[in-house]
Amino acid sequence: MSVAFTEVRHLKSRVGEEVALRGWVRNVRTSKTRFIDLRDGSGFVQCVVGAAEADPASYETAGQLTQECAIALTGLVQTHPKTGEPEILVKTLQLLAGSVDFPITPKDHGIEFLMENRTLWLRSKRQWAIIRIRHTISKAIRDFFDEDGFTLLDAPILTPSACEGTSTLFSTDYFHEGVAFLSQSGQLYQEPGVPAFGKTYCFGPTFRAEKSKTRRHLTEFWMVEPEMAFAGLEDVMQLGERMVKFILARVLTDRVEELKILERDVAPLEAALNLGFARMSYTESVAKLKELGSDINWGEDFGNDDETILMNAMDRPLWVHRFPKSFKAFYMEYDRENPDLAMGADLLAPEGYGEVIGGGERAIDMQYLLDQIKHHGLDQKDYEWYLDVRRFGGVQHAGFGMGLERAVAWICKLPHVRETIPYPRMMGTLRP
Amino acid sequence: MSVAFTEVRHLKSRVGEEVALRGWVRNVRTSKTRFIDLRDGSGFVQCVVGAAEADPASYETAGQLTQECAIALTGLVQTHPKTGEPEILVKTLQLLAGSVDFPITPKDHGIEFLMENRTLWLRSKRQWAIIRIRHTISKAIRDFFDEDGFTLLDAPILTPSACEGTSTLFSTDYFHEGVAFLSQSGQLYQEPGVPAFGKTYCFGPTFRAEKSKTRRHLTEFWMVEPEMAFAGLEDVMQLGERMVKFILARVLTDRVEELKILERDVAPLEAALNLGFARMSYTESVAKLKELGSDINWGEDFGNDDETILMNAMDRPLWVHRFPKSFKAFYMEYDRENPDLAMGADLLAPEGYGEVIGGGERAIDMQYLLDQIKHHGLDQKDYEWYLDVRRFGGVQHAGFGMGLERAVAWICKLPHVRETIPYPRMMGTLRP
Repeated sequence: MSVAFTEVRHLKSRVGEEVALRGWVRNVRTSKTRFIDLRDGSGFVQCVVGAAEADPASYETAGQLTQECAIALTGLVQTHPKTGEPEILVKTLQLLAGSVDFPITPKDHGIEFLMENRTLWLRSKRQWAIIRIRHTISKAIRDFFDEDGFTLLDAPILTPSACEGTSTLFSTDYFHEGVAFLSQSGQLYQEPGVPAFGKTYCFGPTFRAEKSKTRRHLTEFWMVEPEMAFAGLEDVMQLGERMVKFILARVLTDRVEELKILERDVAPLEAALNLGFARMSYTESVAKLKELGSDINWGEDFGNDDETILMNAMDRPLWVHRFPKSFKAFYMEYDRENPDLAMGADLLAPEGYGEVIGGGERAIDMQYLLDQIKHHGLDQKDYEWYLDVRRFGGVQHAGFGMGLERAVAWICKLPHVRETIPYPRMMGTLRP
Repeated sequence: MSVAFTEVRHLKSRVGEEVALRGWVRNVRTSKTRFIDLRDGSGFVQCVVGAAEADPASYETAGQLTQECAIALTGLVQTHPKTGEPEILVKTLQLLAGSVDFPITPKDHGIEFLMENRTLWLRSKRQWAIIRIRHTISKAIRDFFDEDGFTLLDAPILTPSACEGTSTLFSTDYFHEGVAFLSQSGQLYQEPGVPAFGKTYCFGPTFRAEKSKTRRHLTEFWMVEPEMAFAGLEDVMQLGERMVKFILARVLTDRVEELKILERDVAPLEAALNLGFARMSYTESVAKLKELGSDINWGEDFGNDDETILMNAMDRPLWVHRFPKSFKAFYMEYDRENPDLAMGADLLAPEGYGEVIGGGERAIDMQYLLDQIKHHGLDQKDYEWYLDVRRFGGVQHAGFGMGLERAVAWICKLPHVRETIPYPRMMGTLRP
């Protein structure tokens, strides 16, 4: 057909007109009249093929359609009397490409089978909705930082040294230079951008060779990491809150259909958008956790269970701040009021989701940093360029990292991060 | 100071007012009056410290400033009588952080030295301008595809098989699954998105273990790869042209100051924006190249020199299309009018720059693809998921890839791609 095709997303403005569509058949119910669930990637629409309205050959073809075959059709856009959604009264219909025994049927499949057939699973309504929300979150993040005057400073994936210990790092041979590690974080590469650009961010894939299988861990995941000059812990919490609210506002406005497909109760998201985020010091949250039945002791890092317990009790995101220095990274600034504490803050998401943001103020005192590098068993010569940030106009600065997939999991209310990314990578999952 | 600081980029609207600024000292000229070149990351401004206007302590401090120390100051915004740019008549000035012997001085440095000190080199005006233009190009690409209804489908970096041969691949151990390769392209992972989303793109880092050092190759570079359903070679060329023009319009509008810093003659960019791109078949371009003195023969791929020769003679970007199938990837559709040709097209940039886009139509005939996989010595079982795209509603589809760094090099008119990315990775360059 040499006609102009319409995308399903535009049908609402075409009611009463004749249009041409093309897409894939999700399902056909065949009685005297044939009902086709059509998907074209931009949306879903029911197409009705009746013997009276369709030409005989098209009516015949419609009776033989199989799941996931591709078709083109023409017909009248009308409004479904019950749902109020557009539907198509088909006039002509043509098979473009066949499909025999599509493996994922409307019946239930095990997660292993779905993961193995990830490329086909992406065609399901639920996966379509998740990936579209992921896209919107991703774009909202970039729009937020761009509008705020941050400069994009892409961090490298291939890095020469193991910035935070080698135990969870992937590595590769790199010519004569020896080994390169796949980056776990772009932060150290953002800090030199501070005196150059004032405010920077990176947003790209990062890697952790996590040997544990949990519902929160991927080996390859996307992280956004802003860094600001002349900023401290308070600025980190304010920036993170503004960013999360910017994302929520965008998703709640632009992804209504997708949230409905996921049957996501939007009330908790609206609460997070409209309420001020809660704040609690690490010390206060340990007391709270004990009240809630956790066996955590002061000085220990939260386990996943602790985060879940804490966040089941919250109606909004929570900043936990000022952790014991002992389990935080070498580059964290210490609290002038209590040198055992690090000026860090993590944002925990409600509804039992845990950490989505981790950040804080960076140490700028040269001697303190040198001591920390030694204390953590790191090699100073690997960090000379990082120390240069302090040597030459080293001002207070701070930033954070947010894992995209954890944000997607929370906003979509998914039980597992494996559905938050098109092609998840975990221990045991490298295909397709 | 507990004042509200202004960013340099906003000074134009503050003429006549008193403001507070903070940033880094690029240079000080000290005579009776002190002239400070200040950079705050958002822009550059001259600050004049006169004995009459500044308080005595600030005047004294200004005389002792060193390159790249950090300062805060207050003063009156006035317009420089000659340049028309805002400048600051300083009232108070305070040293925030010192800087001793900053290694990169206004004198010339060798490229090796600059590359070793990449984190400090980023503070130079030229690098600032390039990274800001890179940012704008990156954002324009995302805005373009988002506005056009494409869905972001992030491709994985860790991949189980070597899609186009192993000779230029980095690899890493991946738990019990054996070896994972760092992706050279997200394209194969976009194609399954076509029946799910209609139009998709990915935009992330890709890797090639290039053993050659050229001015066009990085081992780690960013690539954007759109893929469209119901599309062929003509659609690829139209989409690529629209995208490049969208990028050019954005850069020419939003990055005027940065193009000036780079002394970029914008006439060729305006020509590319306003003229229709040229088109030439591979066969025609071989004839043209011979005319221009190349010793290329029909059937051979272009060398870098060939692209340079060809594009020195062009006043606008050039699509070269329909290459010999022999040196193109296994998945390319063949030309129905001449089965020795592949339905591919490369976009070459003018002014001697070469390929920035490579793309084409994908083969959809199952038997043809199976033959191709065999012919290229690939293992069919690695491609079953890729073949599924054809098995289940496999319609015509097409797409392309554009290397971000090559686009930046052309638009900024840089002699080498090493300056197009914050932290370049090449053979011999893995640090910092």
